[in-house]
Amino acid sequence: MRFYLTYTEEVKQALAAKSPVVALETTIISHGMPYPQNVQMARDVEQIIRDNGAVPATIGIMNGKIKIGLNDGELQEFAERGEVEKVSRRDFSYILSSGKTGATTVAATMIAADLAGISVFATGGIGGVHRGAEDSMDISADLKELAQTNVAVVCAGVKSILDIGRTLEYLETQGVPVVGYQTDEFPSFYSRESGFSVDFRTDTPEEIARMLQIKWKLNLQGGAVIANPVPLAYAMNHDKMEEVILKALHQADEQHIAGKNITPFLLNSIKQLTAGKSVETNIALIKHNAEVAAKIAVAFMKQQPRAQMGFV
Amino acid sequence: MRFYLTYTEEVKQALAAKSPVVALETTIISHGMPYPQNVQMARDVEQIIRDNGAVPATIGIMNGKIKIGLNDGELQEFAERGEVEKVSRRDFSYILSSGKTGATTVAATMIAADLAGISVFATGGIGGVHRGAEDSMDISADLKELAQTNVAVVCAGVKSILDIGRTLEYLETQGVPVVGYQTDEFPSFYSRESGFSVDFRTDTPEEIARMLQIKWKLNLQGGAVIANPVPLAYAMNHDKMEEVILKALHQADEQHIAGKNITPFLLNSIKQLTAGKSVETNIALIKHNAEVAAKIAVAFMKQQPRAQMGFV
Amino acid sequence: MRFYLTYTEEVKQALAAKSPVVALETTIISHGMPYPQNVQMARDVEQIIRDNGAVPATIGIMNGKIKIGLNDGELQEFAERGEVEKVSRRDFSYILSSGKTGATTVAATMIAADLAGISVFATGGIGGVHRGAEDSMDISADLKELAQTNVAVVCAGVKSILDIGRTLEYLETQGVPVVGYQTDEFPSFYSRESGFSVDFRTDTPEEIARMLQIKWKLNLQGGAVIANPVPLAYAMNHDKMEEVILKALHQADEQHIAGKNITPFLLNSIKQLTAGKSVETNIALIKHNAEVAAKIAVAFMKQQPRAQMGFV
Ligand SMILES: [Mn+2]
Ligand SMILES: [Mn+2]
Ligand SMILES: [Mn+2]
Repeated sequence: MRFYLTYTEEVKQALAAKSPVVALETTIISHGMPYPQNVQMARDVEQIIRDNGAVPATIGIMNGKIKIGLNDGELQEFAERGEVEKVSRRDFSYILSSGKTGATTVAATMIAADLAGISVFATGGIGGVHRGAEDSMDISADLKELAQTNVAVVCAGVKSILDIGRTLEYLETQGVPVVGYQTDEFPSFYSRESGFSVDFRTDTPEEIARMLQIKWKLNLQGGAVIANPVPLAYAMNHDKMEEVILKALHQADEQHIAGKNITPFLLNSIKQLTAGKSVETNIALIKHNAEVAAKIAVAFMKQQPRAQMGFV
Repeated sequence: MRFYLTYTEEVKQALAAKSPVVALETTIISHGMPYPQNVQMARDVEQIIRDNGAVPATIGIMNGKIKIGLNDGELQEFAERGEVEKVSRRDFSYILSSGKTGATTVAATMIAADLAGISVFATGGIGGVHRGAEDSMDISADLKELAQTNVAVVCAGVKSILDIGRTLEYLETQGVPVVGYQTDEFPSFYSRESGFSVDFRTDTPEEIARMLQIKWKLNLQGGAVIANPVPLAYAMNHDKMEEVILKALHQADEQHIAGKNITPFLLNSIKQLTAGKSVETNIALIKHNAEVAAKIAVAFMKQQPRAQMGFV
Repeated sequence: MRFYLTYTEEVKQALAAKSPVVALETTIISHGMPYPQNVQMARDVEQIIRDNGAVPATIGIMNGKIKIGLNDGELQEFAERGEVEKVSRRDFSYILSSGKTGATTVAATMIAADLAGISVFATGGIGGVHRGAEDSMDISADLKELAQTNVAVVCAGVKSILDIGRTLEYLETQGVPVVGYQTDEFPSFYSRESGFSVDFRTDTPEEIARMLQIKWKLNLQGGAVIANPVPLAYAMNHDKMEEVILKALHQADEQHIAGKNITPFLLNSIKQLTAGKSVETNIALIKHNAEVAAKIAVAFMKQQPRAQMGFV
């Protein structure tokens, strides 16, 4: 297994020293945001993690290796996109065996983080149950991953275009804790409200770290959703955003956009319809998630360092 | 792990001696029945298990510890309710880490029983697919737990307000055996009939024990549903009960009852609509399940004792 | 565990020598085709595997033993049918513990192959999401098995009467790779087309073997669907077959055929409606899958033999 993992020097030393490390995904860079905002965001997020006492490990697959941490040129490569594939669990081994380069989704980043012994991961929003999935059965592999892989994911909810209520039902069936960080309400990505409750509210990184420690000591397999609302200054109005999203979905439908093209199309529509404000909010919430994730990682490693399987 | 488990002296000795033990849940006490019928039922059920050659281990979480067996005062505390939370898989680690007290559902009781090395568990009815879940996706975590945790659950079917057919489909997909005990038909909690078949009929505790032994020796992960119909003397008419349940569901709908309030509301409606007979039947079927579970546990330990992981 | 597995001499020697072995199922013999075409097909398929450098291991349960490889008389017994039960994951331990004989489905054959340390399995079509399952929740246990058991299944798609689109959605959620062998399009059993894409195309057995090696080295639990279209000479027209299948489903509906009787009824209807050509195509695709599976098994064992758990 070790053969497939490569580390930046910074991450390597942090793992060896059992210092806190926070995983980051590459799909958010390659598919989630336009260039050059994406690479700027990626660098800012890494710095925020360092400023909060942890080491960032941006994760992707390049030329048949799982990269735990990317150097500047590698980050640039994911940001400028081109041929980069999106890698979920089902694609993971093929992208490696074929020597391709792939940006890891939430599911694939969780897998890689777990292999490297990293327990905390910051992103924007996780995948979930798609609108209409009660008919289409289109449900993101991120949810199944959360049910089986021991990584906590700090996010501002599910990606904005998904079905929040059914995603929470699915997570309940699978036994995944949905933890509010300083909130009783599950946030809805661009907004702090959704009308749905979290399973339980926590107010400190230490509480979350303690829960994770016990969860994994008892072999309760799987991760946790740490729901962290977008900072108030950047939060958008919930009802207006729901309108915007419905309009974007309607446009996609009218123009017969489907498959891999749908997410970039919707993100662009939403950007247009909000006069660019959605991208600002998106960046703000990711930065906030990075900060909270770093604090949780610090608390977690203070309480008891996990054996780092991939590295040592 | 051992740090989180505490035992009554009776259970401790039984586990150390590899004597048969039967797990019992606390949600049935705290949320399933009014006081003081619930505490009386809980004590009677424990005695029935002893009378049939096994030791009862009523399971709950108190002040950050998993209780394997409750003493009289603790049982009383769950029975009188108040702030007791309902704990399923998703809540398990948080209730422990926050030092709270929680009544364990079928899923959480299975987890705790498995940690303690207890293989047989008696309850009333398991959770399942909710009516309307083909749209709402509301499916109990009990079903996922049955797919992954090695504990046999003796029950009179699924809780009466659920969708039996779709629950059986879900269990089939997940590979969970649905075993009839002295029945070809899957029972419907208050009634002995449902119109649905079990996967296979068994007629003795030994047959069931043998199946479980082989299942777990072959590493076929997960539990089994042991479907044990309510005794004839207490059985209610299937069609009449279906009418009662539909009426109760209708009332809940009209009065906009939702979330955590719905189950107690429905149980109360059903009680009213049956002039109290539903509670009698409920108690009778639980006692019968306890008896059958004790016999299976005795047979199971005779065939070959399982290593008791939590304790030894 | 070893106690429950028995081997033919041919398979025993192959496993001991770490030679390539291909698993085959018995349900395809007992329930998938009329006698004596089924036994002829079974023998031909075994020979094709030998001709391609691997050893066939037809799997079934007889008198409480898991048979890894069947001798002539045993094969005959499954082919002539009678009381043979269909065994999926849920039935596996019961059929063993009750000493019955059972034909293994895709799910059960995967379990047995995995216990014996066999990594490649050839069949006709796998189970999947049933038409109408967005309402009925009728989803084959084969899909859940693919998500958890480390065996690659070479097939010509899903059984013809299922819902291809929703099956692919389910597999994506579960993280199961759907690999095209010399095809970009997911085949539809009798036809080479379906309108749906595979996750990625491969063109050589070596590529597939390499992907499997990495998958399992990284502990990415579960199997893979190797989608291998029916040879052109035997392929049927996709639109015409879809019409035929809809007609057969309609007939089943009209005649109130349900439960265990539905698959044989539909297969017979389809045979009638295609003047017997469907059976020919069915046999041709199974033979082709056996050939490809043997080649994958040979490549897999060359790259690095898996520890054979059951045998050694
Ligand atoms: Mn999808
Ligand atoms: Mn629910
Ligand atoms: Mn089915």
